Amino acid sequence: MKSKLNIGLIGAGRIGKVHGETIAFRVPEANLLAVTDPNTDAATAIAKRCGIPQVCASTDEIFANKDIDAVLICSSTNTHADLAVQAAEAGKHIFCEKPIDHTLEKIDRAIAAVNKAKVKMQIGFNRRFDSNFARVRQSILSGEIGTPHLLHIISRDPGPPPISYVKVSGGMFLDMTIHDFDMARFLIGEEVTEIYAAADVRIDPEIGKAGDVDTAIILLRYANGVIGTIDNCRQAPYGYDQRVEVLGSKGAIATENMYPNRAVVSTAESVRRDLPLNFFMERYLDSFEREVRDFVNAVVNDTETPVTAADGRVPVVMALAAKKSYLEGRPVKLSEIA
Amino acid sequence: MKSKLNIGLIGAGRIGKVHGETIAFRVPEANLLAVTDPNTDAATAIAKRCGIPQVCASTDEIFANKDIDAVLICSSTNTHADLAVQAAEAGKHIFCEKPIDHTLEKIDRAIAAVNKAKVKMQIGFNRRFDSNFARVRQSILSGEIGTPHLLHIISRDPGPPPISYVKVSGGMFLDMTIHDFDMARFLIGEEVTEIYAAADVRIDPEIGKAGDVDTAIILLRYANGVIGTIDNCRQAPYGYDQRVEVLGSKGAIATENMYPNRAVVSTAESVRRDLPLNFFMERYLDSFEREVRDFVNAVVNDTETPVTAADGRVPVVMALAAKKSYLEGRPVKLSEIA
Amino acid sequence: MKSKLNIGLIGAGRIGKVHGETIAFRVPEANLLAVTDPNTDAATAIAKRCGIPQVCASTDEIFANKDIDAVLICSSTNTHADLAVQAAEAGKHIFCEKPIDHTLEKIDRAIAAVNKAKVKMQIGFNRRFDSNFARVRQSILSGEIGTPHLLHIISRDPGPPPISYVKVSGGMFLDMTIHDFDMARFLIGEEVTEIYAAADVRIDPEIGKAGDVDTAIILLRYANGVIGTIDNCRQAPYGYDQRVEVLGSKGAIATENMYPNRAVVSTAESVRRDLPLNFFMERYLDSFEREVRDFVNAVVNDTETPVTAADGRVPVVMALAAKKSYLEGRPVKLSEIA
Amino acid sequence: MKSKLNIGLIGAGRIGKVHGETIAFRVPEANLLAVTDPNTDAATAIAKRCGIPQVCASTDEIFANKDIDAVLICSSTNTHADLAVQAAEAGKHIFCEKPIDHTLEKIDRAIAAVNKAKVKMQIGFNRRFDSNFARVRQSILSGEIGTPHLLHIISRDPGPPPISYVKVSGGMFLDMTIHDFDMARFLIGEEVTEIYAAADVRIDPEIGKAGDVDTAIILLRYANGVIGTIDNCRQAPYGYDQRVEVLGSKGAIATENMYPNRAVVSTAESVRRDLPLNFFMERYLDSFEREVRDFVNAVVNDTETPVTAADGRVPVVMALAAKKSYLEGRPVKLSEIA
Repeated sequence: MKSKLNIGLIGAGRIGKVHGETIAFRVPEANLLAVTDPNTDAATAIAKRCGIPQVCASTDEIFANKDIDAVLICSSTNTHADLAVQAAEAGKHIFCEKPIDHTLEKIDRAIAAVNKAKVKMQIGFNRRFDSNFARVRQSILSGEIGTPHLLHIISRDPGPPPISYVKVSGGMFLDMTIHDFDMARFLIGEEVTEIYAAADVRIDPEIGKAGDVDTAIILLRYANGVIGTIDNCRQAPYGYDQRVEVLGSKGAIATENMYPNRAVVSTAESVRRDLPLNFFMERYLDSFEREVRDFVNAVVNDTETPVTAADGRVPVVMALAAKKSYLEGRPVKLSEIA
Repeated sequence: MKSKLNIGLIGAGRIGKVHGETIAFRVPEANLLAVTDPNTDAATAIAKRCGIPQVCASTDEIFANKDIDAVLICSSTNTHADLAVQAAEAGKHIFCEKPIDHTLEKIDRAIAAVNKAKVKMQIGFNRRFDSNFARVRQSILSGEIGTPHLLHIISRDPGPPPISYVKVSGGMFLDMTIHDFDMARFLIGEEVTEIYAAADVRIDPEIGKAGDVDTAIILLRYANGVIGTIDNCRQAPYGYDQRVEVLGSKGAIATENMYPNRAVVSTAESVRRDLPLNFFMERYLDSFEREVRDFVNAVVNDTETPVTAADGRVPVVMALAAKKSYLEGRPVKLSEIA
Repeated sequence: MKSKLNIGLIGAGRIGKVHGETIAFRVPEANLLAVTDPNTDAATAIAKRCGIPQVCASTDEIFANKDIDAVLICSSTNTHADLAVQAAEAGKHIFCEKPIDHTLEKIDRAIAAVNKAKVKMQIGFNRRFDSNFARVRQSILSGEIGTPHLLHIISRDPGPPPISYVKVSGGMFLDMTIHDFDMARFLIGEEVTEIYAAADVRIDPEIGKAGDVDTAIILLRYANGVIGTIDNCRQAPYGYDQRVEVLGSKGAIATENMYPNRAVVSTAESVRRDLPLNFFMERYLDSFEREVRDFVNAVVNDTETPVTAADGRVPVVMALAAKKSYLEGRPVKLSEIA
Repeated sequence: MKSKLNIGLIGAGRIGKVHGETIAFRVPEANLLAVTDPNTDAATAIAKRCGIPQVCASTDEIFANKDIDAVLICSSTNTHADLAVQAAEAGKHIFCEKPIDHTLEKIDRAIAAVNKAKVKMQIGFNRRFDSNFARVRQSILSGEIGTPHLLHIISRDPGPPPISYVKVSGGMFLDMTIHDFDMARFLIGEEVTEIYAAADVRIDPEIGKAGDVDTAIILLRYANGVIGTIDNCRQAPYGYDQRVEVLGSKGAIATENMYPNRAVVSTAESVRRDLPLNFFMERYLDSFEREVRDFVNAVVNDTETPVTAADGRVPVVMALAAKKSYLEGRPVKLSEIA
């Protein structure tokens, strides 16, 4: 391994830009050598902003570049698995945005390629790196709250995505809840064995017409007896709502939302604060930085990545179980899926 | 109706004492005329404390007293339904502690007697009168948070009751969750149609040996599409945990716990407050007062009681559905029960 | 001493009614034997409400009644000192509303009479009995926050009193700040030696025309080196604002306001709670009860009252020092006053 | 003006590093052309980290460089004023760390040079750019809380600086309170006319031996009648305490401290959160970035800097008034100083 990790950036959209800037400005242990995107203008803009020397016409150029050690796959979801296979075959370490794919077949193929090539893979479940959720995980690991019994995850978006996105996203469970499924595993450090999903269309009938739901509570049962819920809604009028709480044998821990400031205004009407940070680019900005830095460090130091390829598979199984539970109106064991 | 409501108190235990003092000291519209309890010393003590002129040897004496307009049934649960029938037949209005009974047969018999006698009946679901939950109900009624979508009830006791109580209580769903089932109906103002209960023994194996559970999350589906959860545990190490939150189309409302003071201490270790009010006699003291005052007013003014006999029946149906769901590992429709 | 303390109530206004109800309904160790007020209707109403057997035409009747052990002086301020003298001479224990008087001469005469008669006297500084401020005092006594260094008292009314009251109240320092001067002594447990008062008319020019101020910050220096401030305003648009904080060598303690409920509403506009408890009759209701109970217990058990006659004198000295400081624009030592 | 602002960095200590990284990584409108520091290793390290092409042996080299448009003066305080004069004479725009100097003579000389050269100058009062205090300022500007009446600034360090620093810092008022004096002017948008400082040695007798104080409350009177306090202590055991609150005619606004996470842990001991962000490099990191970006934008767009040279002078006058007030034990008018 060279002293600096050389990286190729695949995808110049919103999240590609975030990761590119992190590498360029915050991670001295890594260099960006090349970027590619079907939208050449977007790729060129990032290259200029981040000082990336080469804009490639295709991912093949990235994979063929011997100087590149690792790739960040930030392209559209349906390309993740194939690109991961190609990257692995080219001997590149992989940071891949979530989810790897919507089908277990393609996910398994990607994982097999990664394992065969003995490259490292990290999945972009950035919320694990948020200071709040990391604090909750730490409280469980350290024994501060004892053995966990009950878990709640609240995860609500400020507003629904465009219907065009809903139609291709794989559905709310695969596109939105996927983060919460990962969080459920991360916080408790144990596998879920059964899922019961109660869901409905409450926000926009068009979402229903597109075959999806927009509001759900998902009940989780863990191998170790923990019981948990995930609360999802495509629309919280007050903004992005991201909280968790865990009850354990010695205590409980709960996280509050993040706000743009800590000011409280008291008038003749109410005692109030401003709305929470509006969406994931503000709320989770720090976590995006930490996850990429940790990926670079894992490759440079040859340690396990903090979110492995296997960690990318299970949440998809959970999402498929949730969907099956919703459609059949009964608890579904994960063993029924895969 | 006389200008003051004359009341007979049946039961001189903990809750009988609370209600007796409320009538004696806080509700000028009512008089306590008599008290009875199998434990004559307890009855005599309350009579002295509250200035009740007569200690009766039996409930029959209470029912036979023409001057008594209404009774407060604060005796043990297994006597509630029969006493309600007798009270109704004697033409007395009834305030009855929850639950009316553990069986629908006895409940229905009591309700029939009440209806036939055209007396009023109120069930002791005091938490409806808590200023926090009343505020949540008001926010839904007023449209402040729009149409409700999702509901969470957290209801955890500071510690488990004695095993001797567990053996006769009818189980956690009938003894503890019964309050939360009522709260679920009260807050949303709509009926639950289906229940899925995930429960386990996490706190004390003796509870399991007694045939009960001590930890549960119960998923509720309402006729109007609302989805809710109830989180129950027999033991929260930090004390009594009683919170609700509701997400609606225009906003959300959430209540925090009640504390003995509003002091925050910051030291080199942490920024902290004292533990919440420890149990229901402290936390819900005000609500006990309000429910009895409202009962007296309902009788005096001949209006509907705020928690009707029918309101006493449904939570028992819900508890039986939860138990069945737990035993059969599947969602159970309330229509399967009754 | 008889087994029950027999009490005469002098004054049937707002605070007389509060204390009367406390004695009647919450303090089994005491009886109300008589009540008097220039407004006979008011006295009669309280007598009826609280079951007081006798409505007296004058205070003389109270003092002459051999069965009466103690009096509650709840009449207008200008009568306090003279009534205290008469009560002492009649051998009655005294609970006296604050302030004893606006002049040190009359205060000293009252204290002398109390001392000569060897009766007990308690001054109605009820805020010492508030659970929040009591918690702060406890944290200092217990050493939880170490040696105190700095103190802040915020004490703002929801709105100014009528101008007619301002003209006779003795001014803001004697009428409103007097409570905070007592709090300043109570919390730190040490005497203030110097006061600098910066004050102005900010709320209502009519208050200025009446010779008073409505807004002030008063800087306090203690014998033990502690430095403190009192923040007063006759008008806080959001309601009654009553907070303190203390920094010590090992930590700090701060109290928040009291609210009618613990609900937080989040909408597209803000994350908010309802306004604080509006004024002292709501906010300090519990403290009124505790102070009277403690007075009764002090007399019954022959122990020191928790707020002594001397405790009633010093805050008046402080108010006079604050007034002098305001008028002369310089720090004033308490030794300059008395 | 060229399209990018070329900057020379003077001083490679802690704050020089912060500003250097901001320019290098966060402000695309500026370039760092050169850096200098008596400690050449420190200068070289920053140059490497931030990609600065030239490490200069002296400030003269910086001033002589025609390509440099502006300098950041991050050297020791006693050099600020002379460097500002030289920079102005060389036609460079100036960002200068606070305070400009401890003497009004040198400050006035610097300001005169700046005015004569018609260059821009900004003083490093970074806290104005903190999201919390900016929100308070906005609430006053927008009329959200009406006309301000009362102000409190709490500003406590986690622990005292080394005695060696205390001896050269100019004293607590000039070194620590200087930020709060600026904040007092910034929040209210009006000048202070009189100061009364009550101060003492409470934390460390060595500080007293060095001729300084470590604990103070400073009372401020404004030209528009506002009354305010600054609460300073060199040691808050729980960490860095930085809060303000303002009462106005229509409401109040108060800011809370900043924490590393939003987790609340409840155990059998307490309900607690972790300690606040520990010191200014964590708490005010964002504000350091914003102030430098705003300086660059002010120069590039030829607008007024957000903290002018005059804004750098007044807090020093206030500090000198506070010192005089402390020494003479009386309120001091700012007009007595300068």
